[in-house]
Amino acid sequence: VVIGGAEDKIGDQEILRLVADRVGRGRLVVMTCATEDPQGAWKRYREIFTKLGAKNLAHVDIRDRTAAEAAEVSEPIDGAKAVFFTGGDQLRITSHIGGTAAYRRILKVLEGGGIVAGTSAGAAVMSGTMLVEGRSENTPKVGDIVRMAPGLGLLANIVVDMHFSERGRLGRLIGAVAQNPRVLGIGIDEDTAALIEGDVMTVVGSGAIYVVDGRQSAHANVAEVAADETLSIENVTLHVLGGGRRYDLERRRPLPPVEQAQAA
Amino acid sequence: VVIGGAEDKIGDQEILRLVADRVGRGRLVVMTCATEDPQGAWKRYREIFTKLGAKNLAHVDIRDRTAAEAAEVSEPIDGAKAVFFTGGDQLRITSHIGGTAAYRRILKVLEGGGIVAGTSAGAAVMSGTMLVEGRSENTPKVGDIVRMAPGLGLLANIVVDMHFSERGRLGRLIGAVAQNPRVLGIGIDEDTAALIEGDVMTVVGSGAIYVVDGRQSAHANVAEVAADETLSIENVTLHVLGGGRRYDLERRRPLPPVEQAQAA
Repeated sequence: VVIGGAEDKIGDQEILRLVADRVGRGRLVVMTCATEDPQGAWKRYREIFTKLGAKNLAHVDIRDRTAAEAAEVSEPIDGAKAVFFTGGDQLRITSHIGGTAAYRRILKVLEGGGIVAGTSAGAAVMSGTMLVEGRSENTPKVGDIVRMAPGLGLLANIVVDMHFSERGRLGRLIGAVAQNPRVLGIGIDEDTAALIEGDVMTVVGSGAIYVVDGRQSAHANVAEVAADETLSIENVTLHVLGGGRRYDLERRRPLPPVEQAQAA
Repeated sequence: VVIGGAEDKIGDQEILRLVADRVGRGRLVVMTCATEDPQGAWKRYREIFTKLGAKNLAHVDIRDRTAAEAAEVSEPIDGAKAVFFTGGDQLRITSHIGGTAAYRRILKVLEGGGIVAGTSAGAAVMSGTMLVEGRSENTPKVGDIVRMAPGLGLLANIVVDMHFSERGRLGRLIGAVAQNPRVLGIGIDEDTAALIEGDVMTVVGSGAIYVVDGRQSAHANVAEVAADETLSIENVTLHVLGGGRRYDLERRRPLPPVEQAQAA
């Protein structure tokens, strides 16, 4: 469950409710590694998830790699039904837990059919290569488009950007995709989540998900021109998907919305 | 010459220089109808175009339809080589000169092989249906996407948006295109211009032009769902075109950049 940030915490809480519902009686681990205020984030999400019916909540906060390797710190992850990453700085997550015992425990949750969810920075880290920063107020230039780093690698062949419409981030997501159209660009609005089950992504929440598919593109100039030149890329396929819409990440094509699929 | 706003007025002035060069010894009429400060705009552009070598400059400012019908007010447009619309509010241009004697004189300039140029609001008015306003900080909703109005109709089958990357306006341009994919969406960055000659659009300046082609799109939901639902549209083709790139507006396909075309 990849959330674009600023998910509704007061109203109908569609996204967080979905996480709580799927967790049921299982354990939900709130990972506050990305934030500067781990206690505040834990307190806030504990209250929300408790109200939404979650009975078995645990808090794991990891501040360095020593803690990430310490067996007792990440023990609550073992056997959890879901791990939820709060927002903050994605490099705090990847630099501290990447390749550690805590990370291997998270992989086991996924392998066992559990859920890994994250919002904002906690969403960005899901992909193999993640967006760290990039100017979004300007035309993308070939040289300064985006800073990227290795992510947690939970989602193959995808790069995720969040707060998408709100921060006008099309340019930087295209900049990421243009560098290697193997990856599919997934731009997620605030209060919007990508629920990924197998190859199928379903849009949940009040905003939209922008899918940027550069596989058919031609004439991207990222490797050819000087760093201060403007990025050009032709024939990008773009889908704007509102709540309920579905997309096949493997075959790279939109699927009929759930109601239609059930009717068929 | 359709300019995305904030064109360079101090540095190499690529866009304004192109206008001045093409005007040569002909008359260049600066139309300040869109702005609240017509004298300031005239003074600024007079200085710039004079430095760029334009010898024959005229100022036409029209504040109401009576002036737009008065033969003497718009007389400088007759026989001009170029008409240049400054920025401001696009409705000041269309509501005051649409369908008037001044408007017919502008059409004659185009018919005679002259240039009509405009920046920002002066660019938006070029199309048959123009964007007036629309939220760009949010996910597009079906009901509040964009306010549109009839433009000057100089460019058929196009809708222009400006300050494009700078203000994150993808959502509202897609909102416009989704309502009728007959129109091609042209999003122009600041200090960037679309030089349109016949069917061929060439990108000039330091930014990019985003071409949003919805003709192959499927499942746009603008007519089907309630106004507060999120817009969805699938299979939009997107091109990001930097300086020198060309696009065939009639056949809706990118063309080789000028250097390559000349080499071929």
